[in-house]
Amino acid sequence: MRIALAQINPTVGDLKGNAALIIEWARRAREAGAALVAFPELAICGYPPEDLVLKDHFLAGCRQALLQVAGASSEIVSLVGFPLQQGGAVYNGAAVLAGGAVAGTYAKINLPNYAVFDEKRYFTPGDRVAVVEMNGARLGVNICEDLWCECGPTETAAMVGSAGIVVSLSMSPYHVGKGREREAVFSRRAAEAGVFVCYVNGVGGQDELVFDGQSLVFDPEGRLVARARQFTEELLVVDVEPKCRADGMEAGRAPTRCNASHWPVDIVVVEASGVGSPVTSSGPTVAPAAVSVAECLTTEAEVYEALCLAVKDYVAKNGFKQVVMGISGGIDSALTACIAVDALGEGRVNVVSMPSRYSSSGTKDDARETAERLGVNYYEIPIEKIYGSYLESLAPYFAKEPPGVTEQNIQARIRGNLLMALSNKFGWLVLTTGNKSETAVGYATLYGDMAGGFAVLKDVPKTLVYRLSCYRNSLGPQSGPIPESTIDRAPSAELAANQTDQDTLPPYDILDRIIEAYVVRDESVEEIVALGLERPEVERVVGMIDGNEYKRRQAAPGVRITPKAFGKDRRLPITNRYRG
Amino acid sequence: MRIALAQINPTVGDLKGNAALIIEWARRAREAGAALVAFPELAICGYPPEDLVLKDHFLAGCRQALLQVAGASSEIVSLVGFPLQQGGAVYNGAAVLAGGAVAGTYAKINLPNYAVFDEKRYFTPGDRVAVVEMNGARLGVNICEDLWCECGPTETAAMVGSAGIVVSLSMSPYHVGKGREREAVFSRRAAEAGVFVCYVNGVGGQDELVFDGQSLVFDPEGRLVARARQFTEELLVVDVEPKCRADGMEAGRAPTRCNASHWPVDIVVVEASGVGSPVTSSGPTVAPAAVSVAECLTTEAEVYEALCLAVKDYVAKNGFKQVVMGISGGIDSALTACIAVDALGEGRVNVVSMPSRYSSSGTKDDARETAERLGVNYYEIPIEKIYGSYLESLAPYFAKEPPGVTEQNIQARIRGNLLMALSNKFGWLVLTTGNKSETAVGYATLYGDMAGGFAVLKDVPKTLVYRLSCYRNSLGPQSGPIPESTIDRAPSAELAANQTDQDTLPPYDILDRIIEAYVVRDESVEEIVALGLERPEVERVVGMIDGNEYKRRQAAPGVRITPKAFGKDRRLPITNRYRG
Repeated sequence: MRIALAQINPTVGDLKGNAALIIEWARRAREAGAALVAFPELAICGYPPEDLVLKDHFLAGCRQALLQVAGASSEIVSLVGFPLQQGGAVYNGAAVLAGGAVAGTYAKINLPNYAVFDEKRYFTPGDRVAVVEMNGARLGVNICEDLWCECGPTETAAMVGSAGIVVSLSMSPYHVGKGREREAVFSRRAAEAGVFVCYVNGVGGQDELVFDGQSLVFDPEGRLVARARQFTEELLVVDVEPKCRADGMEAGRAPTRCNASHWPVDIVVVEASGVGSPVTSSGPTVAPAAVSVAECLTTEAEVYEALCLAVKDYVAKNGFKQVVMGISGGIDSALTACIAVDALGEGRVNVVSMPSRYSSSGTKDDARETAERLGVNYYEIPIEKIYGSYLESLAPYFAKEPPGVTEQNIQARIRGNLLMALSNKFGWLVLTTGNKSETAVGYATLYGDMAGGFAVLKDVPKTLVYRLSCYRNSLGPQSGPIPESTIDRAPSAELAANQTDQDTLPPYDILDRIIEAYVVRDESVEEIVALGLERPEVERVVGMIDGNEYKRRQAAPGVRITPKAFGKDRRLPITNRYRG
Repeated sequence: MRIALAQINPTVGDLKGNAALIIEWARRAREAGAALVAFPELAICGYPPEDLVLKDHFLAGCRQALLQVAGASSEIVSLVGFPLQQGGAVYNGAAVLAGGAVAGTYAKINLPNYAVFDEKRYFTPGDRVAVVEMNGARLGVNICEDLWCECGPTETAAMVGSAGIVVSLSMSPYHVGKGREREAVFSRRAAEAGVFVCYVNGVGGQDELVFDGQSLVFDPEGRLVARARQFTEELLVVDVEPKCRADGMEAGRAPTRCNASHWPVDIVVVEASGVGSPVTSSGPTVAPAAVSVAECLTTEAEVYEALCLAVKDYVAKNGFKQVVMGISGGIDSALTACIAVDALGEGRVNVVSMPSRYSSSGTKDDARETAERLGVNYYEIPIEKIYGSYLESLAPYFAKEPPGVTEQNIQARIRGNLLMALSNKFGWLVLTTGNKSETAVGYATLYGDMAGGFAVLKDVPKTLVYRLSCYRNSLGPQSGPIPESTIDRAPSAELAANQTDQDTLPPYDILDRIIEAYVVRDESVEEIVALGLERPEVERVVGMIDGNEYKRRQAAPGVRITPKAFGKDRRLPITNRYRG
């Protein structure tokens, strides 16, 4: 049986656009000779639709879009994710579309409600397993988290429903190394249940999430059969031939420890049309699929691609044509500019150098040099005069006070105001350049360098900023877009004379270890000290992280690339006296 | 039996402070002759603790604080809310403390996961009902949402556990009219189960939520016996005498339609100590409690008090001494200043007038006049010079463009920068002054008038701003702090010549009706038009609401006073093509 996994990029809320996209890819699947095509989780509305699901008229619109897809894709059996409203409840659903109609539905049983997921806010869990019977074969259908659960719907479909194939519709957000996690779990699931596992994942950026695709197929021995590419749409076509039982029905097997009869099984019988008949039939239109196993990227390449896709989609899906950003001559803004150019093309990227009395000639030169190497539009607006006017206006109140952080923040906020003025005037999206290390400890100015619509490096620790910069430079041309001096210079915000980041912060390798332990792994001060770090430094950093929740709450969204990002992945109160 | 409901104000994360608070109020309850004292939901850690609950060391700290309370409150039986870690799971728990130890626990069965609630993210639902037996009486114990559910733990405690009293530990966030909703539900619950319902609610502000107290007691006929005041701590002491059965045990009764045997019942037997013995015993220390039924406030008074408490607690619990805010001569900043003064005292409130070329003498005079009437610290920093320096610096790029919204935003952002400079220099918290109507349609400048730490009127529609202003003026002295001219003048942002809000927006009574329908009730354009509103106006407003999600995502937290506020109550994607 030939199955196509349509690794597409839907847009949240774009019901018409998504329906058209699904219809187009169903057509491609049919042309590729597939009997069945599977689309990602909630493909009709995009993922995650969040509180849109609370609107009755939105759910009605989704239903309408689904019926439109059914009517336009009658020549292939399609599995399409959509929000299913039934009997007063709403489910995270999958529809089996065949012959121009909805032949059956499945409601996701395992609803994730941790990390970035809020599915129990929106959906009632399903309590029945669905198995599609077509061309004498049986396919279990489940959705994302279902496939991660041991003794879940996969095993039930195999053991109770006699499915030889399980198709999983998914929207699984990316973080570094997620691909390996998925492959380990799904391989085990396939082997334990004795079924082919066909896992289709969507692709694309959606606010703070990026979906990386990399759809997968495993055989009943748990061997990887096919892997789609990461970060791009792809139609992954495979021929799967489940072993047959004596009665001609495929057989899954049961992990002995499983009680797989948790749920009743619905058998949805569909008639496959002429095209897409099983590969055992003869005919010129059906050739064995050339199955591809895309290579995995290195960590740096993977993260870099993730960031580019996130920027590209945030810009495109929100209707922007161009972006604007400050460029300081430092490594964060240099890397951000590279990503913007690789995502959008240099003609759509505007960079603004806004030097002050504290900007060195080295950084000013590097800013211009980076802009030139990238070929972006470069502007220079010195802030000295504006800064002077603030100091003058505030002099009556500040005269007796020593200058300090206040004056530094004024400069950063002038730059924020200038970038926003360009944004407002020309309709450019402002990209911010702060990294995860700064975001963690609040080494940034709210409404200053934090001002903007999308925070490209928000989840990229400073040590990874360096690695990504070297990676990007390795791609060229020549020695790459980021000057050596930008990489070598001690990092500085240049908001005061002779300032460096390490006046205020521990060395970044230490800082990033503390952030990883405290933020990503939720460890205590005691546990972090036990890693071999100095207690006073750990306490100081943890205090800074806790004390800057108020800044992060007003930060721009930015893409998650680690297992725990700031944003909806980590929800701490601002008013919070807990320390430790 | 004398029961005390300790309507206290814990602080999230302040484990030591909350333990001390609970110990102190248990002492007061004992002095009042109570046999048992009940504290709010999660009183040990404050509510909601959010992702703090994901930290193992935080849970261990809560356990430690609970044991400290137990040890220090051995002379009274206490019911204390805390996060209960047991067998690898975490529950929203209640501890029965008696004789210096934990005599038993209850785990919340019904976990809310809608609106502002995320309890399924943190907690496993309990599956046993707890009944405390003391002095020959039986009391069911449950937590917040449990009491809202029909045929829930309340009925089980009564029917299966023979409880004559049910005590509910709660942290129920306020919105307008919530008190009436609670009384209707709890009265029915008491009457249907035939038990006394003793409902203790906490009080205080926590980020975007304010808890209003107003703890309640109902008798087994569903009659209100006692009501604590709103928005203030109070020890509500009642004598409840459940009818006795032949065997001397109290009896609840069952609503006939209920299958109340959902859960097994744990009976926790505790010995009440000398003080706090039942009222039927004689002795000089036990006198019948003087039960109070506090009066309900009017809507305006209630909302005003809610706003004051929210500001007071946000300031205090985050360690600020003073606040600063812009004052324009308009009604929003005037009302915000009144609330700040009533919450903090005039000596801790700093207001800054920042006039531009577009500020009228009328508004400038009103700003000063309001400040004088309130007795706050008044500053005047004209922005004309700074504004000029921006225009000059941007002239090379803007020369060919007509002036517009960009120039308006620059002015607002200059003001934001000045307020933040004062905040940074003197450690004052910036209060923002935007109302819900503006927040909905994005009639505000990101990083400009939206810059600040707490948005006092964020959930107050403009029409309610007027009502609250009149209410506050009615309290005096004389004609009140807000000048008549401020109330009468057509609203204007004064960012361009002869500007009024209604150049851009529909009249506020229309706008607020659309917001109420679209935001609070999730109605569609069709449904709103059917209310008798003009379709083009509805579509335009809905488009503005949808299109400004990105601004709200970076807005300051502000207190929720309606059934649906912007913030974690309403979670919409920024990237979202759905319209309707």
